[in-house]
Amino acid sequence: MTLLLSNEDVEKVITMSETIEALEAAYLEMADQKALSRPRSDILMAGGQQGQDVYGFKSMEGALLKEGVVALRFNSDIIRWPERAGVVIREKVPSLPGGRWLGLIQLFSAVTGELLAMISDGVIQRFRVGGTSALGARYLAREEAATVGLVGSGWQAGAQAMGLCAVRPVRKIRVYSPNSEHRQSFAAEWSKRLGIGVQAVPTVEEAVKDSDIVCLTTNAVEPVLNAGLVKPGQHVSAIKRGEIGDDILMRSDVLVLHTQEGKPKHYFVGGLEVSGLNKAYRPMPREADGDITALVQGRVKRKDQAQITCFLNNMGLGLQFAAVAHLVYQKAQAAGLGRILPTEWFTEDVHP
Amino acid sequence: MTLLLSNEDVEKVITMSETIEALEAAYLEMADQKALSRPRSDILMAGGQQGQDVYGFKSMEGALLKEGVVALRFNSDIIRWPERAGVVIREKVPSLPGGRWLGLIQLFSAVTGELLAMISDGVIQRFRVGGTSALGARYLAREEAATVGLVGSGWQAGAQAMGLCAVRPVRKIRVYSPNSEHRQSFAAEWSKRLGIGVQAVPTVEEAVKDSDIVCLTTNAVEPVLNAGLVKPGQHVSAIKRGEIGDDILMRSDVLVLHTQEGKPKHYFVGGLEVSGLNKAYRPMPREADGDITALVQGRVKRKDQAQITCFLNNMGLGLQFAAVAHLVYQKAQAAGLGRILPTEWFTEDVHP
Repeated sequence: MTLLLSNEDVEKVITMSETIEALEAAYLEMADQKALSRPRSDILMAGGQQGQDVYGFKSMEGALLKEGVVALRFNSDIIRWPERAGVVIREKVPSLPGGRWLGLIQLFSAVTGELLAMISDGVIQRFRVGGTSALGARYLAREEAATVGLVGSGWQAGAQAMGLCAVRPVRKIRVYSPNSEHRQSFAAEWSKRLGIGVQAVPTVEEAVKDSDIVCLTTNAVEPVLNAGLVKPGQHVSAIKRGEIGDDILMRSDVLVLHTQEGKPKHYFVGGLEVSGLNKAYRPMPREADGDITALVQGRVKRKDQAQITCFLNNMGLGLQFAAVAHLVYQKAQAAGLGRILPTEWFTEDVHP
Repeated sequence: MTLLLSNEDVEKVITMSETIEALEAAYLEMADQKALSRPRSDILMAGGQQGQDVYGFKSMEGALLKEGVVALRFNSDIIRWPERAGVVIREKVPSLPGGRWLGLIQLFSAVTGELLAMISDGVIQRFRVGGTSALGARYLAREEAATVGLVGSGWQAGAQAMGLCAVRPVRKIRVYSPNSEHRQSFAAEWSKRLGIGVQAVPTVEEAVKDSDIVCLTTNAVEPVLNAGLVKPGQHVSAIKRGEIGDDILMRSDVLVLHTQEGKPKHYFVGGLEVSGLNKAYRPMPREADGDITALVQGRVKRKDQAQITCFLNNMGLGLQFAAVAHLVYQKAQAAGLGRILPTEWFTEDVHP
């Protein structure tokens, strides 16, 4: 049988702390050569229904030997790069019937080959990003870090807050967004959900200045924080290369990337050129001190309390989807969630 | 809506001549930079239910600008490399419930992002291989080629026969397989289906010696034909690098590959080693004269009737699946075939 799981199903079983543990275990397997990712590839071509729209087909895969699974995650998106508040952002147009998006994780058994599950990727996507940044903070932020400055209040910001609260004794979050309504409603929602003070602030500076952890979580492809605001002892976390400036990367005493392979393989159809991409994947101004396997293996560390540490969650790995989707699949199955589709639909009696 | 199409549905609408035309159009688009493939990748790890079994997850993608589609094709296989009749072959174990396999093409719209169709890949796989080899013969075999020697009588052999009959005035086929029953039943079935004489012969030599076109279509990863048997004026076609010997490649006056990128990107989990793969993807002993785009653009040609030409259909391209799946999707939709699945199943209201 193949289990079809919606985001609502995923929400019912996923937890941030289990996500973090599953990711950490997967990174340790990866460090031990027992897990790997087929790196992300993006096909980009003119598409959509408006002049400048781009169609993007993104895919990546991950394999876990011990768990005996492979996951394929893809996204089929109409993309625009508009300017908001003076900054170029990347926007996925909800172009599907009913104003929806399409992103799916397909999980396979390495024992039988079976398609175990098809899972909408939205919630898992958010948890794996939040969980991975949380691992960065678990290994790099000061033990007693209690205050967080969030720059960004969108879909990813909540998961970043959850993740940081899971690994550090966070008591206070200050959140900035250029949109006043967004930051207010984020503060209202997440102070309730996390049970701690979440305060909306009107400038990046106020979010950052007294925070132990500075967390960039935007869809900007240009820098949103000035290095002049970063202080000794802070841990800086970013979910994209685009949103973090070279100055901060240079100022960081310890810089760790999620993956050293910081850029998807792009396939441009018809000589398409996308200027937003050059901003989103600017070359690094310095070498990093390691990737996430170096962190979980303890090979890279903060050396003293005054150091500025930085974790750049620069690109996704198929491995993350394998780890979190496998966790979600098992829990959803145990809970009797989802829609069971006949295996015959996705199999054949013809030798392929 | 998402259309789920089985191999039976595909059989009802697919034709070899339309497949060949769709492929040729796609290769011309590719030559014009208006179409491309994300090259095949294979993840390989210990799996299955027996000691030496390997789990293989293969994927590739193709994009067509004019048609506005992207196709993702994947296979989830338990694989063995046993020896048959003294030759190592690659065998996909029907390990799924009911003794089935799993290979699927997912077709996406670049206009809306929608998952248009999910199509079992078996029949299309066969037609695209047969159609591509047929294109090789259309451009390389002598115009009057009327006799074909088939080495191999499996699933791919029938499509090779269909393809060659579509591009040349074939009147006679001689088929060899080490298994006498297999070659007999192939001859019986295909003489009926093609309306020409198909004769089973007990040796490779008899299949090859008086044939205008020599067609290797086996699952062997070691050479199945001795170059000594190849004669001036013959066109040699092979569907895999493994089954054709270096001696034939060296002896060919004109050698064309399907794609210059002749090897998938392999990702081995846990230091897995598969000796069959080294045989299957032996390095080429010489440079080829071009790839299929050179053929369809007329940049590479047979220069005289006495030349030995060779088309090596060395590796699949996502592009082929985009072209043929798009064709099949349109025809199946017009014919009201398949099972309609709700788009909501595969979309989400959560920004991925």
